[in-house]
Amino acid sequence: MISKTYPSDVFDLHPILESDTIGVAQLDCCKVLLMNDSNYPWLILVPQRPGLRELHDLKPEDLYLTTSELVKCSEAVENIFSPDKINIGLLGNQVPQLHIHVIARFTVDPAWPKPVWGQVPVLPYMTKDIDERVGLLRGALLS
Amino acid sequence: MISKTYPSDVFDLHPILESDTIGVAQLDCCKVLLMNDSNYPWLILVPQRPGLRELHDLKPEDLYLTTSELVKCSEAVENIFSPDKINIGLLGNQVPQLHIHVIARFTVDPAWPKPVWGQVPVLPYMTKDIDERVGLLRGALLS
Repeated sequence: MISKTYPSDVFDLHPILESDTIGVAQLDCCKVLLMNDSNYPWLILVPQRPGLRELHDLKPEDLYLTTSELVKCSEAVENIFSPDKINIGLLGNQVPQLHIHVIARFTVDPAWPKPVWGQVPVLPYMTKDIDERVGLLRGALLS
Repeated sequence: MISKTYPSDVFDLHPILESDTIGVAQLDCCKVLLMNDSNYPWLILVPQRPGLRELHDLKPEDLYLTTSELVKCSEAVENIFSPDKINIGLLGNQVPQLHIHVIARFTVDPAWPKPVWGQVPVLPYMTKDIDERVGLLRGALLS
């Protein structure tokens, strides 16, 4: 890996990620968000570093942190939801800020076995369900 | 991360990955394959460890190697093909053996801006084009 630099010290979450998600936890490098779509347990990790588009834009120390936090999220999703499969994706074709999807998939979910993106309309959580879900995830991630 | 074990010492490539791809390079942990679909420059990394389904099944030392090799592949794809975006995916809904897609995306490709999976029929390479593409990739990955 070659030496990397970031264009500034200021990180701002992309407004689409801000509006589509609910905050779960701030880890050492990534902010963890819950996608507001109750069709699937769906986390999004956003490394809090400015100007990132691709995974290889991360400095080595941040790549290490991000990978560790991604594994932590994947294990939390496995332990809490017991999915049939976990899907991880870094796409960014529509939202260019680097973000990592971690999605619990079930053979009975509405998109199985296809990837979730664009398959069925978003189904926002009912307010009463958000606190419990975020609490479970936060407990697993911050323990 | 907790301690991990693998179920055996014997690794066999899943037959669907074997039949759909062309070998590019063996790195320290992952074998790198070229998806035989000329619609997109599309690599697949397969950690050569038995019994893996999820990213978090990798032992920490293999996770570190796999991440480094993923970044190396992403940088190679960027340098060789100058894509508009790189898509990375770990799905496994249909092929359960852990494998990582690294796909060069262009705003003019046949699936843009959607993820590539299931969008358009596979378009195998013409034989004369395979050696050049594999040679370019191998040169970048083994340098």
